[in-house]
Amino acid sequence: MTGAVLCVREAAVATVILSNPGKLNAIDFAMWQELTAVVNDLAADRQVRCVVLRGEGEQAFAAGGDIEEFRVRRDTLDHALAYHAQVGAALQAVSACPQPTLALVHGACIGGGLELAAQCDLRICGKSSRFGAPINQLGFSMYPVEMEGLLRLAGTATLLEILLEGRILDAAEALAKGLVTRVVADAAVVGEAYASARRICEGAPLVARAHKQWVRRLQSDVPLSGEELRASFAFLESEDYREGLAAFLEKRKPNFRGC
Amino acid sequence: MTGAVLCVREAAVATVILSNPGKLNAIDFAMWQELTAVVNDLAADRQVRCVVLRGEGEQAFAAGGDIEEFRVRRDTLDHALAYHAQVGAALQAVSACPQPTLALVHGACIGGGLELAAQCDLRICGKSSRFGAPINQLGFSMYPVEMEGLLRLAGTATLLEILLEGRILDAAEALAKGLVTRVVADAAVVGEAYASARRICEGAPLVARAHKQWVRRLQSDVPLSGEELRASFAFLESEDYREGLAAFLEKRKPNFRGC
Amino acid sequence: MTGAVLCVREAAVATVILSNPGKLNAIDFAMWQELTAVVNDLAADRQVRCVVLRGEGEQAFAAGGDIEEFRVRRDTLDHALAYHAQVGAALQAVSACPQPTLALVHGACIGGGLELAAQCDLRICGKSSRFGAPINQLGFSMYPVEMEGLLRLAGTATLLEILLEGRILDAAEALAKGLVTRVVADAAVVGEAYASARRICEGAPLVARAHKQWVRRLQSDVPLSGEELRASFAFLESEDYREGLAAFLEKRKPNFRGC
Repeated sequence: MTGAVLCVREAAVATVILSNPGKLNAIDFAMWQELTAVVNDLAADRQVRCVVLRGEGEQAFAAGGDIEEFRVRRDTLDHALAYHAQVGAALQAVSACPQPTLALVHGACIGGGLELAAQCDLRICGKSSRFGAPINQLGFSMYPVEMEGLLRLAGTATLLEILLEGRILDAAEALAKGLVTRVVADAAVVGEAYASARRICEGAPLVARAHKQWVRRLQSDVPLSGEELRASFAFLESEDYREGLAAFLEKRKPNFRGC
Repeated sequence: MTGAVLCVREAAVATVILSNPGKLNAIDFAMWQELTAVVNDLAADRQVRCVVLRGEGEQAFAAGGDIEEFRVRRDTLDHALAYHAQVGAALQAVSACPQPTLALVHGACIGGGLELAAQCDLRICGKSSRFGAPINQLGFSMYPVEMEGLLRLAGTATLLEILLEGRILDAAEALAKGLVTRVVADAAVVGEAYASARRICEGAPLVARAHKQWVRRLQSDVPLSGEELRASFAFLESEDYREGLAAFLEKRKPNFRGC
Repeated sequence: MTGAVLCVREAAVATVILSNPGKLNAIDFAMWQELTAVVNDLAADRQVRCVVLRGEGEQAFAAGGDIEEFRVRRDTLDHALAYHAQVGAALQAVSACPQPTLALVHGACIGGGLELAAQCDLRICGKSSRFGAPINQLGFSMYPVEMEGLLRLAGTATLLEILLEGRILDAAEALAKGLVTRVVADAAVVGEAYASARRICEGAPLVARAHKQWVRRLQSDVPLSGEELRASFAFLESEDYREGLAAFLEKRKPNFRGC
């Protein structure tokens, strides 16, 4: 029996759930596939303004890839290339998701789970959550493509600490080292995550998309062109810009419609 | 009535003051212009060893750009390009200032104020200061050129947190996330900022300039040339290097003259 | 009399000791030379799984370069180029060391000492350790090549704070700003550092090497080639991968042999 990836919608917030009960939501090959498909669907849905990613239950976000599966799924070079192409597709789907993405983290956020959380825009976790990738105890190294997101989030020193020592960081240390956005009491994680999702949904959706797009664009060394800079003022023609300015000057809450 | 940018000199320290009373020092177009001119003048003045940038009073560094003005100043693409060219010129003037720059922050440091503080070398703030850019509530996105300094200072994750959630970070969170250099009691901000300015002024001015120049140079991916490396030893011919070594060996305080 | 660089071996851990008694282990030219040779030897030794770098005694990691020597060693451009070529060779040897490297820091970690610690993979220090490079008081600027490691570790803002203010950061501030990996009580530094070295030695050595190599590789902007990606699966053929998976599935501790 394999795990599953579920998707629940409530108003403009979609929650994607990694579910592999009894295995701390370890992500198997089928789940990496499902996750890619689910996130790509949400990315194309203009009704969705925020995507929350979480594990089933409160024991784990995801304890990593499903190691047992490696004996058959990652036993040869060809299998390994195919396996990690799929992991990469899932990470890329989350990374490229035009709407803001938020990892809601309870408990273990390890290995592939950590790689996935690192691709989200925000990470909100409980005090007893824990982070790492102790694969030096498993005899294999992280796929370089999968290191990239962690390197961008955590920097060289913290990534090497995690990989070389194989240590598991607690929530406070993860926060201090920039691995997570916010730490709250375990019982408050869901509340804080959806409060954040609500704040995101109350902002102008086109603005959120633009901010994600430009931050991503600025990670490249290619200088911004005049055409791109002009395009960055597309908001001038939007109803939401007019609404935002009007609401500000009238000292009222804006009501953004996403156009 | 528009705001103003003032400049006060005391010994080798110049203080540049953003002043827009009643608007939490919101920076209007005329102020962006004045700021550019004032900072460019200071940059050319060899008597100045440190530039402190602050807001008038203790309510705000600067609450952002002057939104009311946007209806006429940033209503069309051409206006927007001209407006942000001026903002960019001011940010660039601060960024390129050869002397060390220090943002002294009380209260609100928001939007354009945050962009400006991020261009300074140091940021010293009070416990009740606050940081953010909640423009997702206004319906427009940050100009990509203006994101660059924030991205360099805060990194992708923190910039996205600020922009997507539109949250305002308090001083402790801003410190933890690298947005500020030091946080002190509100009543101690002025004292700490000028103590820092004094420490800077007591160091060799040519060394400060060299350090700023090389750190900036290293942000480029172009490898250092042999000529540049030789040029980095220009200090060998300076009086201040002789004075510095002599003072160290004689266990006395050096007296640097900037040559 | 000059200082010395010692090397002590115990099982798979090599400890390299900077020793310049009475000068807080200030690193003189001969020591930079010895350090380069010692680290290059260890790098070639497959029995070594972890390198610990420390200062003699508990007063200092290293208080910097040996300033007194500068009057003869760094008095002309040619001398300066030769001197810093040697410093660069030592920093490069540590940076390129294929085994994990760990700086064990007591007390002063200043100037060249800080540059050296920054090249290690991990930095474990005591509460009373202190970090900085107050060379603005000496009248010379840091060699740009030597800034690179600090810039990568600490970022632009923290490096400028250190260089422009010439402030000495205490351990807590160094931790908050990412200069060190962990801070423990002074009396616990040795214990924590060797506990970390043991954790590293218990992991698969080939995996540690691969992680260091890929993290370093990803600092380049050149995209990963298909050949490199296939090479990243070299572990599939290793005994240690088989051992790691078997141990995981049998819920026992693995015993890695480094092949």
